[in-house]
Amino acid sequence: MPFSPFDRIRVVLVRTSHPGNIGSAARAMRTMGLSRLVLVQPKSFPDPEADALAASAFDVLEAAQVCETLEEALAGTVMQVAFSARTRTLSHEPLGARGAAREVLVTTEGNVALVFGNETYGLSNEEVMRCNRLAHIPTDEEASSLNLAAAVQVAVYELRMAWLDATETTAPKARAPTKTIQEGELARHEDVERLLAHLEQTLYASGFLLPNNPRRLMERMRRLFARSNLEVEEVNILRGMLTQWDKSISLSQPIVDKKTRK
Amino acid sequence: MPFSPFDRIRVVLVRTSHPGNIGSAARAMRTMGLSRLVLVQPKSFPDPEADALAASAFDVLEAAQVCETLEEALAGTVMQVAFSARTRTLSHEPLGARGAAREVLVTTEGNVALVFGNETYGLSNEEVMRCNRLAHIPTDEEASSLNLAAAVQVAVYELRMAWLDATETTAPKARAPTKTIQEGELARHEDVERLLAHLEQTLYASGFLLPNNPRRLMERMRRLFARSNLEVEEVNILRGMLTQWDKSISLSQPIVDKKTRK
Repeated sequence: MPFSPFDRIRVVLVRTSHPGNIGSAARAMRTMGLSRLVLVQPKSFPDPEADALAASAFDVLEAAQVCETLEEALAGTVMQVAFSARTRTLSHEPLGARGAAREVLVTTEGNVALVFGNETYGLSNEEVMRCNRLAHIPTDEEASSLNLAAAVQVAVYELRMAWLDATETTAPKARAPTKTIQEGELARHEDVERLLAHLEQTLYASGFLLPNNPRRLMERMRRLFARSNLEVEEVNILRGMLTQWDKSISLSQPIVDKKTRK
Repeated sequence: MPFSPFDRIRVVLVRTSHPGNIGSAARAMRTMGLSRLVLVQPKSFPDPEADALAASAFDVLEAAQVCETLEEALAGTVMQVAFSARTRTLSHEPLGARGAAREVLVTTEGNVALVFGNETYGLSNEEVMRCNRLAHIPTDEEASSLNLAAAVQVAVYELRMAWLDATETTAPKARAPTKTIQEGELARHEDVERLLAHLEQTLYASGFLLPNNPRRLMERMRRLFARSNLEVEEVNILRGMLTQWDKSISLSQPIVDKKTRK
């Protein structure tokens, strides 16, 4: 396969019910130059119906990676775009599919996942919160239910259009323009997850977060981090701060307490 | 059906082989607010497969007009856009799907047809010449064969986007679509400055930041906060965490220390 500007971009389909949609999504990807397909708990795969609808994109299906969890599918990505038709409260600010495509291309380094949920239920809130971007495809108010493969088609079409725009505007040596300001390497999904886990642990230990507290605070922090495009070095600094805080907490515990905690 | 800015726009499918594609095209139209479907010599229509794939767009199928000739299907239109993947000699200059959508909306009066050919053969040269516009959907050079319903989806999506662009630009009270979910008030400059000052103080007290340390770390944090568009509530949460950390630090200091510090 020749070099593609989209090699670092994967399409992740979560719990797809109809194998035909997997095939159609593969074909949609192929027409726009994408080839990395990841399936999380597909109901049936491989499947002859998927093969039939993939048409000439059979190679995309053959190379598809099947995962047990969304975590696994997102490993190694610096940007994860959750596609959802539903409006959600306390979530990331939603981008249009066009704006999302531009953001993906501006992130010139690191892997990116476009994430699509089940045909009937979409993505769960928890799954959306595992991603650092939320995107929607503008639709008629009365009929917002795009077919899954149609949604993938629009998303990857917008990627190709954004790429064409970028190469046409900045040619001959096409490069995304806004990258110059943020030159640090972006943190991967799993690094940010570990930072969140560490933060939660420290907040409990310090007494700031009470065990019977609602989860709202951690969700806010997750949203803040998602918005911030954390860099690798920033994650390291923040974790260093938390480790230092952990030390203060441990020193502040009376020795009696430490014993009784055993 | 409520008023739609797309009522004057019809989708014309010529000699469609697979009834499933007719259903999927109807669904694609419905999600973007279009409802006028015209079929020229469909191989099979009505057809249960079309009904199944139309999902909630069954009304579009029910109202579909079946014609014997393309001429009949184009009657009464002032603009006819032929969609084709093939490059053609002696033909109109091809527009991209995006440019075509803009042209359609600029034509504020009169009926418009978007014309799509057969799954395998597309439109004949003669059919293309019956139209006064030629459009293509940009694809990968190696895989230009979009599924018919996918091509319709992209075309009508571009119509909706062009319409949204036009109404947002011209309407004085255009609603900002993305602001509704994130309604948090943004923190003011001075609040962020106080947060940074508090952070620096706590980091010194904890021993994380040494007085002879270079200033680079605080500069990084400043840059991170600037990028994050912090909200008022987020600043409050972060300062709450710092205050909690301050308590741990103060409890961890041996009493002797406190005295000698006087």
